Amino acid sequence: MSMSRILSGGLLGLALAATPAFADGHIDQAIKARQGLMQFYAMNLGVLGAMAKGERDYDAAAATAAAANIAAIAGTDQSMLWPQGSDEMSADNTRALPDIWENFADVSAKSDDMVAAAAAMETAAGTDLASLQEAMKGLGGACGACHKPYRAPE
Amino acid sequence: MSMSRILSGGLLGLALAATPAFADGHIDQAIKARQGLMQFYAMNLGVLGAMAKGERDYDAAAATAAAANIAAIAGTDQSMLWPQGSDEMSADNTRALPDIWENFADVSAKSDDMVAAAAAMETAAGTDLASLQEAMKGLGGACGACHKPYRAPE
Repeated sequence: MSMSRILSGGLLGLALAATPAFADGHIDQAIKARQGLMQFYAMNLGVLGAMAKGERDYDAAAATAAAANIAAIAGTDQSMLWPQGSDEMSADNTRALPDIWENFADVSAKSDDMVAAAAAMETAAGTDLASLQEAMKGLGGACGACHKPYRAPE
Repeated sequence: MSMSRILSGGLLGLALAATPAFADGHIDQAIKARQGLMQFYAMNLGVLGAMAKGERDYDAAAATAAAANIAAIAGTDQSMLWPQGSDEMSADNTRALPDIWENFADVSAKSDDMVAAAAAMETAAGTDLASLQEAMKGLGGACGACHKPYRAPE
């Protein structure tokens, strides 16, 4: 994955979402889409996490496939998924805090970190278990770095 | 995108899903994830479709970004998203017909066609409007080729 591809991905296009380009139906659609992508992240992280914790035998091919999925999703331009009005104060069925839209620069920086951690995992996953475990710290940390400040408790 | 990457993507790993590796919670998670990916496809297709129909000015950069998103999702291994028991007879909130699990070879072939159509769109989208419009036929056709036989009516 080239650096330009990395830099074009994630939430970097988030500033676009500051313009109210969506009707309410599109808000629901955006929330459903981004939650589905998060769910897909979670399922693939589950594969890697189970190996990292020794709950599942290390399998280089399965780990690589899971890491490639995460990196592919991280590389997409998700700007359409974060329209104004899709925070938890304005919309149902979301835990996205309004602070996201107040802190574009910080969210974008954290998104870049996640894209970089996903790329590191894509290399590490197929190398060996120790590499996967090390990369898991970075990837898990990158997820939490956004979820902690910008997602409401369940 | 290399051919091996293309061939590793889509639903090709579907045969894996024939083993009942998921508890019920995982069924719901898989359905939510795949519907989110479909929603993200739809949002990006919406951008391309609006340009194709002249409802929105042709914008090579926006078209390329949308097409790249579609191709990235199409390139993922979605085998985890189609576990046995996640059809509309067995699970709530899905229109996936049981026939999907009876016809792996056909579903996989149609998935490959969709991956190829997405790759063609990725090239066409940034070329010019006429190319985008032509590629839209292939991509729309590839979507419908699976939705018509394998998705229950709303």
